[in-house]
Amino acid sequence: METFELPHQRRLEVCISPALFPVYYQSKDCVVVVIDIFRATSAICTAFEHGVRSVIPVASLEEAHEYKQKGYIVAAERNGEIVEGFDLGNSPFSYMNPQLKGKDVVLTTTNGTKAIERAKTADKIIIGSFLNISAVVDFLNRENKNVILLCAGWKDRFNMEDTLFAGAVVSKLKENPIFTGLADSSLAALDLYESAKSDMNAYLSGSSHRRRLQKLDLEKDIDYCLQMDISDKVPTFKGNALSL
Amino acid sequence: METFELPHQRRLEVCISPALFPVYYQSKDCVVVVIDIFRATSAICTAFEHGVRSVIPVASLEEAHEYKQKGYIVAAERNGEIVEGFDLGNSPFSYMNPQLKGKDVVLTTTNGTKAIERAKTADKIIIGSFLNISAVVDFLNRENKNVILLCAGWKDRFNMEDTLFAGAVVSKLKENPIFTGLADSSLAALDLYESAKSDMNAYLSGSSHRRRLQKLDLEKDIDYCLQMDISDKVPTFKGNALSL
Repeated sequence: METFELPHQRRLEVCISPALFPVYYQSKDCVVVVIDIFRATSAICTAFEHGVRSVIPVASLEEAHEYKQKGYIVAAERNGEIVEGFDLGNSPFSYMNPQLKGKDVVLTTTNGTKAIERAKTADKIIIGSFLNISAVVDFLNRENKNVILLCAGWKDRFNMEDTLFAGAVVSKLKENPIFTGLADSSLAALDLYESAKSDMNAYLSGSSHRRRLQKLDLEKDIDYCLQMDISDKVPTFKGNALSL
Repeated sequence: METFELPHQRRLEVCISPALFPVYYQSKDCVVVVIDIFRATSAICTAFEHGVRSVIPVASLEEAHEYKQKGYIVAAERNGEIVEGFDLGNSPFSYMNPQLKGKDVVLTTTNGTKAIERAKTADKIIIGSFLNISAVVDFLNRENKNVILLCAGWKDRFNMEDTLFAGAVVSKLKENPIFTGLADSSLAALDLYESAKSDMNAYLSGSSHRRRLQKLDLEKDIDYCLQMDISDKVPTFKGNALSL
């Protein structure tokens, strides 16, 4: 990519693991889209769609405990399950509760909130999921900046669903001439999405996290998280919290 | 993958960047296949096919200089070109020279030798390229160990050709029941390879390193490196050098 970039071009790259973020992050002047389809970023989009005021992402359970002691509503998930002693996990359905309307929610998850933590020095961090994909794409087209699609993955490993979402974003942005000369990571994510798009649920049937969630009986979360465009909101990281 | 592994199963994972190696490397007891299709591992396979006795990979130009002062034949490539003052780069064609027969060659390249450096603590490191793919697959089937297909990538970024090779290896190993329950990284590489295999050269036409090599007029190297099974040798890292 480097050698072929024209002055008006922007980089559009897929970073498949938070552990690789330092490799892709070349300057603060970029938009980082944090992606954790199953389920943190899908849950965050759902929370804002249902009127939550802010989501404060924290990376560790220790920080989550501290917020809880201060009286916050705190959501904590590890390995797909709600951590004992906390109010919520990361099932999107928990965030449809009208009692959360106007509230601030603290959130820590296995992968998603760690990805946000890694990206914190970037100028702009937004939250992407299939639920708000068109709103994310519109945002990126308007911003006219370099873009890093940051997949939360699974404990720093590659995962399929986050990469498919990245590919879906690439498929919508690639017509924008500022993003021509796609990086290999973007070409690969795009190709995977093209293979999967006619039936993502079926395509993901052999994937590791899908099997993990199936085991936990979370089929309806999977179906929900693969829906497109049920929210037009783009949660954005400002200060120490996500808000609209 | 973790949760679903049966006792007799082996992990078969694709690590798309040397920077992610610590994430995938869980114990010494595994085989790491180092992959740098354009062109380090293709050049190494070619060197052994043409009778080179050993290849000593070094990560830095400083080490390469030290070996040169000691009288070794030293190959050094950075950004696709031979580094000034060295005998060879990493074009496979340079290693067909009969004068190299029986000789030890020191090699440093932009990505490939760094990947070897990263993997050095593993019990077994072997060199993979399309040129020796069936020999590599036979080796892995015989070893019956966890496998990490380590893509050298481009300066720690994802690249397409190394991932395609990893996918080709997965396509040949997936029938072996010890490797069932593929990791997401293996499923993705496999799917990309399935898309590409009917005409890899065409599939790679938009990839970044392909464009980089095209610019350097290295089309014939590309064609050469995409050939399958012109060597049945598996270069293996022992001590500080690769040998047969």
